[in-house]
Amino acid sequence: MRHQNLLYAHSGGVTAVINASAAAVVAAARASGRVDRVFAAWRGIVGVLEEALVDTACLDEAALARLARTPGGAFGSCRFDLPHDDGGKAMDRLFEVFDAHDIGWLLYNGGNGSMDAVARIQAEAARRGHALVCVGVPKTVDNDIVGTDCCPGFGSAARYLATSMLEAGLDTASMVGSKGSVFVMEVMGRNTGWLAAATALAAQGDPERAPHIVLVPEAGFDEAALLARVREITERLGYCAVTVAEGIRRPDGSLLMEKSRDARGYVQLGGAGLAVARLINERLGYKFHWAIPDYLQRSAGHWLSATDRAQAEAVGRVAVEYALAGKGGTMPAIRRLRDAPYRWDVAPVDTAAVANLERGLPDGFVRADGLHVTAAACDYMRPLIEGEIAPPVVAGLPDYGRWDWATVARRLPAWQA
Amino acid sequence: MRHQNLLYAHSGGVTAVINASAAAVVAAARASGRVDRVFAAWRGIVGVLEEALVDTACLDEAALARLARTPGGAFGSCRFDLPHDDGGKAMDRLFEVFDAHDIGWLLYNGGNGSMDAVARIQAEAARRGHALVCVGVPKTVDNDIVGTDCCPGFGSAARYLATSMLEAGLDTASMVGSKGSVFVMEVMGRNTGWLAAATALAAQGDPERAPHIVLVPEAGFDEAALLARVREITERLGYCAVTVAEGIRRPDGSLLMEKSRDARGYVQLGGAGLAVARLINERLGYKFHWAIPDYLQRSAGHWLSATDRAQAEAVGRVAVEYALAGKGGTMPAIRRLRDAPYRWDVAPVDTAAVANLERGLPDGFVRADGLHVTAAACDYMRPLIEGEIAPPVVAGLPDYGRWDWATVARRLPAWQA
Repeated sequence: MRHQNLLYAHSGGVTAVINASAAAVVAAARASGRVDRVFAAWRGIVGVLEEALVDTACLDEAALARLARTPGGAFGSCRFDLPHDDGGKAMDRLFEVFDAHDIGWLLYNGGNGSMDAVARIQAEAARRGHALVCVGVPKTVDNDIVGTDCCPGFGSAARYLATSMLEAGLDTASMVGSKGSVFVMEVMGRNTGWLAAATALAAQGDPERAPHIVLVPEAGFDEAALLARVREITERLGYCAVTVAEGIRRPDGSLLMEKSRDARGYVQLGGAGLAVARLINERLGYKFHWAIPDYLQRSAGHWLSATDRAQAEAVGRVAVEYALAGKGGTMPAIRRLRDAPYRWDVAPVDTAAVANLERGLPDGFVRADGLHVTAAACDYMRPLIEGEIAPPVVAGLPDYGRWDWATVARRLPAWQA
Repeated sequence: MRHQNLLYAHSGGVTAVINASAAAVVAAARASGRVDRVFAAWRGIVGVLEEALVDTACLDEAALARLARTPGGAFGSCRFDLPHDDGGKAMDRLFEVFDAHDIGWLLYNGGNGSMDAVARIQAEAARRGHALVCVGVPKTVDNDIVGTDCCPGFGSAARYLATSMLEAGLDTASMVGSKGSVFVMEVMGRNTGWLAAATALAAQGDPERAPHIVLVPEAGFDEAALLARVREITERLGYCAVTVAEGIRRPDGSLLMEKSRDARGYVQLGGAGLAVARLINERLGYKFHWAIPDYLQRSAGHWLSATDRAQAEAVGRVAVEYALAGKGGTMPAIRRLRDAPYRWDVAPVDTAAVANLERGLPDGFVRADGLHVTAAACDYMRPLIEGEIAPPVVAGLPDYGRWDWATVARRLPAWQA
């Protein structure tokens, strides 16, 4: 085999366990005896284009263990899709970098968009007759990748959000007042309601417990039905807790959030929770509190799901196996073998078949009135948040790593986008 | 001694360890052998007026242990100040309730306003020649009670927020982009910057780590200085993390938050973080994310400071001692005996001397440029977030209690406010 180095990169939003996948890739590649050097790109696919490569040989076993428990993306990330309209310039550059650094295997960690990149890079290798093997490593807190039962990153975010709703629900219940007390928590998920649905676990099967209402994008936003339900619950209990997915939409398809655009014109999601809270306050006169955990929900390394972390490590480890076995264009997917006790394994899926698709909550997971999720949804999610891994703590804070990477010497001219 | 029952009540915002104080009160009263029944008012002082009393005899030892680890106020709470202008009507009613239920001791858990109630009720007992002994139990996540080195509830909220900033800072650092990436977290604290200052612990002494900027009410909001600093940090690191206290004010004294009023005309704090994030986005063009943990920061029973919980238990236990010793009008305060290793004890403070005052960050805790806190502030806070108490976990969630209290039979006509 001509190429002897392996390159790992991750793109898109990071998670509390993405580094656990990265550490597992490095460890498995070392253990295989078949990989010379294990590189990581600094800032995902952008880092490959820019030839910004870190040699992970600098990480000893203790540092790898530290990496595995540190949330966020230790090698940076990016929001960048390989262009289709540049005449192949970016793709050419990728292969120049692969060749310049003897990259035989590319492991690309990401969500739907990244799986598209995996499929395209592998197809390009085939077209060129190039020996590169490109394998995907799934991750996303949004849990919206098609072809896998769940996505590494989701379980820990789900556990954090369910715990947060449980705790904030107890707080809200304490503050019951004569004019009602409403708590609204806005969660991530883009166009899907998986993370919002996860907060339903906080109720532990009791409809009188928080969250009393869960609004997901898969159900159209019905203002009248929402207000009637909030009033009914608040009149009975004195308070009401509501989960709002950032991506909920009105029946006409428009987003409920208050739109904002950054300097590049990207819409930044966020604001649906405040919009719902204000609506309730204006129409029903109830006092409200609202929370938006934002990055906190996807970086809570102090409260990981052990199941999630084990799956993050498994997809990293197995992706190396697939790569070394020449299974280019695949990703390791989580298969659910049994619900209770929960059993799972990992099997290969063709990235070309799942790329750029988006998996929302199935019909059976959303309650008929569109204001909550079903017991079936809770049965699906429950095992994913289970299992404790407490991080080592120093002076009251989790003992995470922090790195200042040196990139290896460049062998090519600077990349001109 | 004529009266034989003890009444516990808590008012104001709840905390992650307020129930630990309540459980300690019950346990200490039982252990004393001098208390017949231990009542808890349902919804604080309002519950006393309404004669809504719970007999805590329903709690066995296992239930007390469960109570101690459950966040939020198990006996409800209220935002209600004893009126000064009702011709003594409410005060008369309190003593009618005390007499109707043989209350010899009142333990009142709260913040500055509650300590005022303690002082006034004790003075009224003296004026009447009544044997009631009223003792305060300090708590507030805001840490703004005068006369105590710190306030039970603060340490756990501080630990949660410092951990959250550490984790979200790692996430933000991963997402470094060409147009800069700014993360803003808005925290509680009313008119003081204690909770905002606590997030500085996340940086672990390194000025290059999040949070890079901490805005507190004790420093005037200097827009130009803030923007210059955000630009400087973002140009150097590619990202910037900012903590914003909800109560920050412009140099003219106006609140930076976007004001809103509930149906009763109360100003609801909240919005300063978004205002700061938007300002940065508009003036500098940086992309931003923002978080508002709201109730999550004061109810995070899954990530308690063991020091904080020990102090919450101590003030509950010692308040019973003070009550039985006839030290009416006092509250047990935390005294710091040594910084490192941290040593503390509890000593009585006269509530009349501290009621309604508010303790902000001292001058030496705010950096001269008003954009961060000092090493001295971190030295003060560090021991308060230390020590682990992991809650028992069932199916991935903390095993908290939930109660449906029965109140004891009323002996008086209904209260007419």
